[in-house]
Amino acid sequence: MTWRASVLTLFPEMFPGPLGLSLLGKALANTLWSLDVRDIRAHGLGKHRTVDDTPSGGGPGMVMRADVACAAIDAARAANPDVPSIYLSPRGAPLTQKRVRELAAGSGAILLCGRFEGLDQRAIDARALEEISLGDFVLAGGEIAAMALIEACVRLIPGVLGAEASPEEESFSNGLLEYPQFTRPQSFEGRDIPDVLTGGNHKEISKWRQARSEALTRARRPDLWALFEKAKP
Amino acid sequence: MTWRASVLTLFPEMFPGPLGLSLLGKALANTLWSLDVRDIRAHGLGKHRTVDDTPSGGGPGMVMRADVACAAIDAARAANPDVPSIYLSPRGAPLTQKRVRELAAGSGAILLCGRFEGLDQRAIDARALEEISLGDFVLAGGEIAAMALIEACVRLIPGVLGAEASPEEESFSNGLLEYPQFTRPQSFEGRDIPDVLTGGNHKEISKWRQARSEALTRARRPDLWALFEKAKP
Repeated sequence: MTWRASVLTLFPEMFPGPLGLSLLGKALANTLWSLDVRDIRAHGLGKHRTVDDTPSGGGPGMVMRADVACAAIDAARAANPDVPSIYLSPRGAPLTQKRVRELAAGSGAILLCGRFEGLDQRAIDARALEEISLGDFVLAGGEIAAMALIEACVRLIPGVLGAEASPEEESFSNGLLEYPQFTRPQSFEGRDIPDVLTGGNHKEISKWRQARSEALTRARRPDLWALFEKAKP
Repeated sequence: MTWRASVLTLFPEMFPGPLGLSLLGKALANTLWSLDVRDIRAHGLGKHRTVDDTPSGGGPGMVMRADVACAAIDAARAANPDVPSIYLSPRGAPLTQKRVRELAAGSGAILLCGRFEGLDQRAIDARALEEISLGDFVLAGGEIAAMALIEACVRLIPGVLGAEASPEEESFSNGLLEYPQFTRPQSFEGRDIPDVLTGGNHKEISKWRQARSEALTRARRPDLWALFEKAKP
Protein backbone atom coordinates (compact mmCIF):
# COMPACT_ATOMS: atom_id res chain seq x y z
CA MET A 1 0.00 0.00 0.00
CA THR A 2 1.19 3.48 -0.84
CA TRP A 3 2.08 5.78 2.07
CA ARG A 4 -0.50 8.55 2.00
CA ALA A 5 -0.33 12.03 3.48
CA SER A 6 -3.67 13.81 3.84
CA VAL A 7 -3.08 17.51 4.41
CA LEU A 8 -5.88 19.75 5.73
CA THR A 9 -5.07 23.37 5.00
CA LEU A 10 -6.53 26.77 4.17
CA PHE A 11 -3.82 27.08 1.52
CA PRO A 12 -4.07 23.97 -0.66
CA GLU A 13 -2.15 25.77 -3.41
CA MET A 14 0.99 25.54 -1.23
CA PHE A 15 1.14 21.80 -2.01
CA PRO A 16 2.97 19.84 -3.27
CA GLY A 17 5.33 22.85 -3.49
CA PRO A 18 8.85 21.72 -2.58
CA LEU A 19 7.56 18.15 -2.10
CA GLY A 20 6.86 17.98 -5.85
CA LEU A 21 10.53 18.40 -6.79
CA SER A 22 13.79 16.50 -6.38
CA LEU A 23 13.75 12.86 -5.30
CA LEU A 24 10.54 13.23 -3.31
CA GLY A 25 8.78 14.69 -6.33
CA LYS A 26 9.99 11.81 -8.50
CA ALA A 27 8.79 9.35 -5.89
CA LEU A 28 5.41 11.13 -5.81
CA ALA A 29 5.15 10.89 -9.61
CA ASN A 30 6.09 7.20 -9.38
CA THR A 31 3.41 6.67 -6.69
CA LEU A 32 5.90 5.54 -4.04
CA TRP A 33 3.80 7.85 -1.86
CA SER A 34 0.69 9.93 -2.40
CA LEU A 35 -0.57 13.32 -1.33
CA ASP A 36 -4.22 14.15 -0.65
CA VAL A 37 -4.57 17.91 -0.17
CA ARG A 38 -7.88 19.08 1.30
CA ASP A 39 -9.19 22.61 1.62
CA ILE A 40 -10.54 23.17 5.14
CA ARG A 41 -12.67 25.98 3.73
CA ALA A 42 -14.77 23.38 1.88
CA HIS A 43 -16.19 22.65 5.35
CA GLY A 44 -16.64 26.34 6.22
CA LEU A 45 -20.01 27.72 7.30
CA GLY A 46 -22.45 29.82 5.37
CA LYS A 47 -22.08 31.83 2.23
CA HIS A 48 -18.61 33.03 3.22
CA ARG A 49 -17.39 29.56 4.20
CA THR A 50 -16.35 30.87 7.59
CA VAL A 51 -13.77 28.72 9.40
CA ASP A 52 -12.86 30.88 12.41
CA ASP A 53 -14.25 33.14 15.10
CA THR A 54 -12.96 35.38 17.90
CA PRO A 55 -11.32 33.73 20.96
CA SER A 56 -13.62 33.03 23.91
CA GLY A 57 -12.49 35.23 26.78
CA GLY A 58 -10.97 37.81 24.47
CA GLY A 59 -7.52 38.33 23.04
CA PRO A 60 -6.11 39.09 19.63
CA GLY A 61 -6.54 37.06 16.46
CA MET A 62 -9.00 34.39 15.45
CA VAL A 63 -9.46 30.74 16.44
CA MET A 64 -10.37 27.90 14.08
CA ARG A 65 -13.80 26.50 14.89
CA ALA A 66 -14.08 22.96 16.29
CA ASP A 67 -17.06 22.04 14.12
CA VAL A 68 -15.30 23.06 10.90
CA ALA A 69 -11.99 21.40 11.81
CA CYS A 70 -13.73 18.16 12.88
CA ALA A 71 -15.77 18.00 9.68
CA ALA A 72 -12.54 18.32 7.69
CA ILE A 73 -10.82 15.66 9.82
CA ASP A 74 -13.76 13.26 9.52
CA ALA A 75 -13.77 13.58 5.73
CA ALA A 76 -10.02 12.97 5.59
CA ARG A 77 -10.36 9.93 7.86
CA ALA A 78 -12.97 8.41 5.59
CA ALA A 79 -10.52 8.66 2.68
CA ASN A 80 -7.38 7.71 4.65
CA PRO A 81 -8.44 5.43 7.49
CA ASP A 82 -6.27 3.93 10.23
CA VAL A 83 -3.55 6.56 10.19
CA PRO A 84 -2.61 8.99 13.00
CA SER A 85 -4.32 12.39 12.97
CA ILE A 86 -1.74 15.05 13.72
CA TYR A 87 -2.20 18.73 14.54
CA LEU A 88 0.95 20.75 13.87
CA SER A 89 1.34 23.27 16.65
CA PRO A 90 4.14 24.81 18.72
CA ARG A 91 2.33 23.40 21.78
CA GLY A 92 2.94 19.85 20.60
CA ALA A 93 5.54 17.26 21.42
CA PRO A 94 8.75 18.02 19.52
CA LEU A 95 9.10 15.84 16.42
CA THR A 96 11.85 13.24 16.75
CA GLN A 97 13.49 10.86 14.29
CA LYS A 98 11.99 8.00 16.33
CA ARG A 99 8.45 9.30 15.69
CA VAL A 100 9.36 9.89 12.04
CA ARG A 101 10.46 6.25 11.72
CA GLU A 102 7.21 5.03 13.28
CA LEU A 103 5.11 7.22 11.00
CA ALA A 104 7.08 6.16 7.90
CA ALA A 105 6.54 2.50 8.82
CA GLY A 106 2.77 3.04 8.91
CA SER A 107 0.44 3.69 6.02
CA GLY A 108 0.40 7.48 6.23
CA ALA A 109 -0.80 10.43 8.28
CA ILE A 110 -3.52 13.07 8.40
CA LEU A 111 -1.96 16.48 9.01
CA LEU A 112 -4.06 19.42 10.12
CA CYS A 113 -2.32 22.74 9.46
CA GLY A 114 -3.29 25.50 11.86
CA ARG A 115 -3.45 29.20 11.03
CA PHE A 116 -4.54 32.20 13.08
CA GLU A 117 -4.29 32.10 16.88
CA GLY A 118 -4.96 28.37 17.14
CA LEU A 119 -7.59 25.66 17.03
CA ASP A 120 -10.54 25.26 19.38
CA GLN A 121 -9.29 22.85 22.07
CA ARG A 122 -12.46 20.76 21.77
CA ALA A 123 -11.44 19.67 18.26
CA ILE A 124 -8.11 18.42 19.63
CA ASP A 125 -9.89 16.57 22.45
CA ALA A 126 -12.88 15.22 20.50
CA ARG A 127 -10.72 13.76 17.72
CA ALA A 128 -7.79 12.82 19.97
CA LEU A 129 -5.37 14.71 17.75
CA GLU A 130 -1.68 14.09 18.28
CA GLU A 131 -0.06 17.51 18.69
CA ILE A 132 3.40 17.71 17.13
CA SER A 133 5.76 20.66 17.04
CA LEU A 134 8.80 21.05 14.78
CA GLY A 135 10.66 22.88 17.51
CA ASP A 136 10.60 25.80 19.90
CA PHE A 137 9.78 28.49 17.38
CA VAL A 138 6.54 29.82 15.93
CA LEU A 139 5.51 29.65 12.28
CA ALA A 140 2.73 31.56 10.52
CA GLY A 141 0.87 28.30 9.92
CA GLY A 142 1.27 24.55 9.93
CA GLU A 143 1.91 24.11 6.22
CA ILE A 144 5.71 24.28 6.19
CA ALA A 145 5.78 22.12 9.32
CA ALA A 146 3.63 19.55 7.52
CA MET A 147 6.03 19.64 4.58
CA ALA A 148 8.96 18.99 6.89
CA LEU A 149 7.20 16.07 8.57
CA ILE A 150 6.19 14.58 5.22
CA GLU A 151 9.70 14.97 3.79
CA ALA A 152 11.26 13.36 6.87
CA CYS A 153 8.89 10.37 6.59
CA VAL A 154 8.86 9.90 2.82
CA ARG A 155 12.66 9.86 2.52
CA LEU A 156 12.62 6.70 4.66
CA ILE A 157 10.22 4.87 2.33
CA PRO A 158 12.21 2.18 0.49
CA GLY A 159 13.14 3.28 -3.02
CA VAL A 160 12.65 7.01 -2.49
CA LEU A 161 16.26 8.08 -1.93
CA GLY A 162 17.91 5.36 -3.99
CA ALA A 163 21.66 5.19 -3.53
CA GLU A 164 22.00 8.95 -3.04
CA ALA A 165 21.77 8.81 0.72
CA SER A 166 21.94 6.45 3.66
CA PRO A 167 19.33 6.61 6.40
CA GLU A 168 21.44 4.20 8.45
CA GLU A 169 24.49 6.41 8.80
CA GLU A 170 23.24 9.85 9.70
CA SER A 171 22.47 12.15 12.58
CA PHE A 172 20.22 10.60 15.29
CA SER A 173 20.29 7.09 13.77
CA ASN A 174 22.63 6.05 16.59
CA GLY A 175 21.69 8.82 19.01
CA LEU A 176 24.65 10.98 17.98
CA LEU A 177 25.22 13.87 15.60
CA GLU A 178 26.95 12.89 12.39
CA TYR A 179 30.74 13.04 12.07
CA PRO A 180 32.27 15.73 9.82
CA GLN A 181 32.48 14.98 6.12
CA PHE A 182 35.23 15.83 3.67
CA THR A 183 35.71 15.40 -0.07
CA ARG A 184 38.06 16.57 -2.81
CA PRO A 185 40.05 18.76 -3.24
CA GLN A 186 42.75 17.46 -0.88
CA SER A 187 43.66 21.02 0.09
CA PHE A 188 41.26 23.94 0.31
CA GLU A 189 42.46 27.39 1.38
CA GLY A 190 45.29 25.80 3.32
CA ARG A 191 43.00 23.26 5.03
CA ASP A 192 43.73 19.60 4.33
CA ILE A 193 41.54 16.54 4.58
CA PRO A 194 42.48 14.77 7.86
CA ASP A 195 45.20 12.16 7.13
CA VAL A 196 43.26 9.30 8.67
CA LEU A 197 40.51 9.65 6.05
CA THR A 198 42.92 9.29 3.13
CA GLY A 199 45.05 6.55 4.75
CA GLY A 200 42.80 3.68 3.70
CA ASN A 201 42.67 2.01 7.14
CA HIS A 202 38.97 1.39 7.51
CA LYS A 203 39.17 0.45 11.17
CA GLU A 204 40.97 3.69 11.97
CA ILE A 205 38.50 5.69 9.89
CA SER A 206 35.59 4.13 11.71
CA LYS A 207 37.19 4.85 15.10
CA TRP A 208 37.94 8.47 14.14
CA ARG A 209 34.39 9.06 12.94
CA GLN A 210 32.87 7.60 16.09
CA ALA A 211 35.14 9.75 18.25
CA ARG A 212 34.26 12.88 16.30
CA SER A 213 30.53 12.09 16.49
CA GLU A 214 30.79 11.66 20.23
CA ALA A 215 32.86 14.83 20.74
CA LEU A 216 30.49 16.92 18.62
CA THR A 217 27.40 15.59 20.39
CA ARG A 218 28.95 16.17 23.81
CA ALA A 219 29.93 19.74 22.93
CA ARG A 220 26.83 20.80 21.07
CA ARG A 221 23.99 18.71 22.48
CA PRO A 222 24.54 17.77 26.12
CA ASP A 223 20.89 16.63 26.17
CA LEU A 224 21.47 13.99 23.47
CA TRP A 225 24.82 13.07 25.00
CA ALA A 226 23.20 12.33 28.36
CA LEU A 227 20.70 10.00 26.67
CA PHE A 228 23.51 8.29 24.74
CA GLU A 229 25.54 7.75 27.93
CA LYS A 230 22.51 6.34 29.72
CA ALA A 231 21.79 3.88 26.88
CA LYS A 232 25.33 2.46 26.91
CA PRO A 233 25.44 -1.20 27.88
CA MET B 1 16.13 48.54 4.97
CA THR B 2 14.22 45.48 3.80
CA TRP B 3 14.93 42.18 5.56
CA ARG B 4 16.62 40.01 2.98
CA ALA B 5 16.90 36.22 2.84
CA SER B 6 19.56 34.86 0.48
CA VAL B 7 18.96 31.17 -0.13
CA LEU B 8 21.69 28.97 -1.64
CA THR B 9 20.16 25.82 -3.05
CA LEU B 10 20.42 23.18 -5.77
CA PHE B 11 16.64 23.53 -6.20
CA PRO B 12 15.97 27.23 -6.77
CA GLU B 13 12.60 26.35 -8.30
CA MET B 14 11.40 25.36 -4.81
CA PHE B 15 11.29 29.08 -3.90
CA PRO B 16 9.33 31.12 -3.01
CA GLY B 17 6.92 28.13 -2.91
CA PRO B 18 4.78 28.38 0.23
CA LEU B 19 6.55 31.65 1.14
CA GLY B 20 4.95 33.29 -1.90
CA LEU B 21 1.39 32.78 -0.60
CA SER B 22 -0.73 33.96 2.32
CA LEU B 23 0.37 36.91 4.44
CA LEU B 24 4.07 36.24 3.85
CA GLY B 25 3.52 36.24 0.10
CA LYS B 26 1.64 39.55 0.29
CA ALA B 27 4.44 41.00 2.40
CA LEU B 28 6.97 39.77 -0.17
CA ALA B 29 4.99 41.42 -2.98
CA ASN B 30 4.83 44.61 -0.89
CA THR B 31 8.62 44.42 -0.32
CA LEU B 32 8.32 44.17 3.45
CA TRP B 33 10.97 41.52 2.97
CA SER B 34 12.92 40.18 -0.02
CA LEU B 35 14.13 36.84 -1.24
CA ASP B 36 17.33 36.29 -3.19
CA VAL B 37 17.43 32.69 -4.44
CA ARG B 38 20.79 31.50 -5.75
CA ASP B 39 21.58 28.30 -7.59
CA ILE B 40 24.65 26.64 -6.05
CA ARG B 41 25.17 24.86 -9.36
CA ALA B 42 26.09 28.21 -10.96
CA HIS B 43 29.36 27.76 -9.03
CA GLY B 44 29.74 24.11 -10.04
CA LEU B 45 32.92 22.87 -11.72
CA GLY B 46 33.47 21.96 -15.35
CA LYS B 47 31.08 21.25 -18.12
CA HIS B 48 28.74 19.33 -15.83
CA ARG B 49 28.76 22.01 -13.10
CA THR B 50 29.77 19.40 -10.56
CA VAL B 51 29.04 20.37 -6.94
CA ASP B 52 29.78 17.17 -5.04
CA ASP B 53 32.20 14.26 -4.75
CA THR B 54 32.52 11.01 -2.82
CA PRO B 55 33.19 11.17 0.96
CA SER B 56 36.85 11.02 2.01
CA GLY B 57 37.36 7.78 3.91
CA GLY B 58 34.45 6.09 2.18
CA GLY B 59 30.80 5.71 2.98
CA PRO B 60 27.57 6.09 1.09
CA GLY B 61 26.31 9.18 -0.70
CA MET B 62 28.04 12.32 -1.87
CA VAL B 63 29.46 15.37 -0.10
CA MET B 64 29.15 18.97 -1.27
CA ARG B 65 32.56 20.40 -2.19
CA ALA B 66 34.02 23.16 -0.02
CA ASP B 67 35.26 25.19 -2.99
CA VAL B 68 31.85 25.21 -4.66
CA ALA B 69 29.95 26.00 -1.46
CA CYS B 70 32.35 28.80 -0.50
CA ALA B 71 32.16 30.38 -3.95
CA ALA B 72 28.35 30.42 -3.59
CA ILE B 73 28.56 31.87 -0.07
CA ASP B 74 31.04 34.56 -1.12
CA ALA B 75 28.79 35.67 -3.99
CA ALA B 76 25.77 35.80 -1.65
CA ARG B 77 27.75 37.81 0.92
CA ALA B 78 28.70 40.37 -1.70
CA ALA B 79 25.00 40.91 -2.45
CA ASN B 80 23.75 40.64 1.17
CA PRO B 81 26.57 41.83 3.44
CA ASP B 82 26.64 41.91 7.24
CA VAL B 83 24.09 39.15 7.83
CA PRO B 84 24.69 35.77 9.51
CA SER B 85 25.61 32.86 7.22
CA ILE B 86 23.65 29.82 8.28
CA TYR B 87 24.02 26.20 7.24
CA LEU B 88 20.86 24.18 7.83
CA SER B 89 21.85 20.77 9.14
CA PRO B 90 20.64 18.23 11.69
CA ARG B 91 24.04 18.64 13.37
CA GLY B 92 23.33 22.27 14.19
CA ALA B 93 22.03 24.00 17.28
CA PRO B 94 18.24 23.62 17.48
CA LEU B 95 16.43 26.72 16.27
CA THR B 96 14.75 28.65 19.07
CA GLN B 97 12.31 31.53 19.13
CA LYS B 98 15.06 33.58 20.79
CA ARG B 99 17.36 33.09 17.78
CA VAL B 100 14.41 33.78 15.46
CA ARG B 101 13.79 37.11 17.23
CA GLU B 102 17.47 38.06 16.91
CA LEU B 103 17.55 37.17 13.22
CA ALA B 104 14.30 39.04 12.54
CA ALA B 105 15.71 42.12 14.25
CA GLY B 106 18.73 42.09 11.91
CA SER B 107 18.82 42.84 8.22
CA GLY B 108 18.49 39.29 6.95
CA ALA B 109 20.30 35.96 6.62
CA ILE B 110 22.21 33.83 4.14
CA LEU B 111 20.88 30.27 4.23
CA LEU B 112 22.85 27.42 2.71
CA CYS B 113 20.66 24.40 2.01
CA GLY B 114 22.49 21.09 2.14
CA ARG B 115 21.67 18.02 0.09
CA PHE B 116 23.39 14.64 -0.16
CA GLU B 117 25.39 13.29 2.74
CA GLY B 118 26.54 16.72 3.93
CA LEU B 119 28.93 19.59 3.31
CA ASP B 120 32.72 19.45 3.43
CA GLN B 121 33.58 20.51 7.00
CA ARG B 122 36.21 22.94 5.68
CA ALA B 123 33.48 25.13 4.16
CA ILE B 124 31.78 25.35 7.56
CA ASP B 125 35.10 26.22 9.23
CA ALA B 126 36.50 28.55 6.58
CA ARG B 127 33.34 30.67 6.38
CA ALA B 128 32.44 30.33 10.07
CA LEU B 129 28.96 29.10 9.18
CA GLU B 130 26.39 28.99 11.97
CA GLU B 131 24.89 25.49 11.94
CA ILE B 132 21.19 25.46 12.75
CA SER B 133 18.86 22.47 12.98
CA LEU B 134 15.06 22.57 12.98
CA GLY B 135 14.94 19.64 15.36
CA ASP B 136 16.00 16.05 15.96
CA PHE B 137 14.86 14.63 12.67
CA VAL B 138 16.44 14.35 9.22
CA LEU B 139 15.15 16.01 6.05
CA ALA B 140 16.11 15.25 2.46
CA GLY B 141 17.66 18.70 2.15
CA GLY B 142 17.82 22.10 3.78
CA GLU B 143 15.19 23.81 1.64
CA ILE B 144 12.11 23.17 3.77
CA ALA B 145 14.16 23.99 6.87
CA ALA B 146 15.15 27.30 5.27
CA MET B 147 11.49 28.01 4.51
CA ALA B 148 10.58 27.36 8.15
CA LEU B 149 13.35 29.65 9.41
CA ILE B 150 12.38 32.40 6.96
CA GLU B 151 8.68 32.13 7.82
CA ALA B 152 9.44 32.26 11.56
CA CYS B 153 11.54 35.43 11.08
CA VAL B 154 9.42 37.24 8.52
CA ARG B 155 6.20 36.93 10.54
CA LEU B 156 7.88 39.04 13.24
CA ILE B 157 8.68 41.89 10.85
CA PRO B 158 6.35 44.78 11.66
CA GLY B 159 3.42 44.98 9.27
CA VAL B 160 3.65 41.40 7.98
CA LEU B 161 0.95 39.75 10.10
CA GLY B 162 -1.22 42.82 10.59
CA ALA B 163 -3.95 42.33 13.17
CA GLU B 164 -4.40 38.65 12.33
CA ALA B 165 -2.01 37.44 14.97
CA SER B 166 -0.13 38.46 18.06
CA PRO B 167 3.54 37.63 18.44
CA GLU B 168 3.37 38.82 22.07
CA GLU B 169 0.85 36.27 23.28
CA GLU B 170 1.93 32.92 21.94
CA SER B 171 3.95 29.83 22.70
CA PHE B 172 7.54 30.55 23.91
CA SER B 173 7.02 34.34 24.15
CA ASN B 174 6.94 33.97 27.96
CA GLY B 175 8.77 30.64 28.14
CA LEU B 176 5.52 28.66 28.31
CA LEU B 177 3.30 26.81 25.85
CA GLU B 178 0.16 28.70 24.92
CA TYR B 179 -3.09 28.20 26.83
CA PRO B 180 -5.97 26.35 25.11
CA GLN B 181 -8.21 28.40 22.84
CA PHE B 182 -11.96 28.19 22.36
CA THR B 183 -14.47 29.90 20.11
CA ARG B 184 -18.10 29.57 19.10
CA PRO B 185 -20.24 27.46 19.14
CA GLN B 186 -20.83 27.42 22.90
CA SER B 187 -21.47 23.69 22.83
CA PHE B 188 -19.78 21.22 20.47
CA GLU B 189 -20.54 17.50 20.65
CA GLY B 190 -21.49 17.90 24.30
CA ARG B 191 -18.33 19.86 25.13
CA ASP B 192 -18.85 23.42 26.41
CA ILE B 193 -16.56 26.41 26.46
CA PRO B 194 -15.18 26.69 30.04
CA ASP B 195 -17.44 29.03 32.06
CA VAL B 196 -14.62 31.33 33.10
CA LEU B 197 -14.01 32.34 29.47
CA THR B 198 -17.58 33.45 28.92
CA GLY B 199 -18.01 35.10 32.34
CA GLY B 200 -16.47 38.40 31.34
CA ASN B 201 -14.13 38.68 34.37
CA HIS B 202 -10.87 39.59 32.71
CA LYS B 203 -8.75 39.07 35.80
CA GLU B 204 -10.16 35.55 36.24
CA ILE B 205 -9.64 34.80 32.54
CA SER B 206 -6.04 35.92 32.75
CA LYS B 207 -5.42 33.80 35.86
CA TRP B 208 -7.06 30.75 34.26
CA ARG B 209 -4.99 31.08 31.08
CA GLN B 210 -1.74 31.45 33.00
CA ALA B 211 -2.57 28.37 35.11
CA ARG B 212 -3.40 26.31 32.00
CA SER B 213 -0.21 27.45 30.27
CA GLU B 214 1.83 26.41 33.28
CA ALA B 215 0.06 23.06 33.67
CA LEU B 216 0.46 22.22 29.97
CA THR B 217 4.13 23.17 29.93
CA ARG B 218 4.84 21.17 33.09
CA ALA B 219 3.07 18.09 31.70
CA ARG B 220 4.31 18.20 28.14
CA ARG B 221 7.66 19.95 28.28
CA PRO B 222 9.47 19.40 31.56
CA ASP B 223 12.57 20.89 29.90
CA LEU B 224 10.87 24.24 29.28
CA TRP B 225 9.21 24.10 32.67
CA ALA B 226 12.57 23.73 34.43
CA LEU B 227 13.87 26.82 32.60
CA PHE B 228 10.72 28.75 33.51
CA GLU B 229 11.03 27.80 37.19
CA LYS B 230 14.68 28.81 37.23
CA ALA B 231 13.90 32.22 35.69
CA LYS B 232 11.28 33.04 38.32
CA PRO B 233 12.21 36.03 40.49
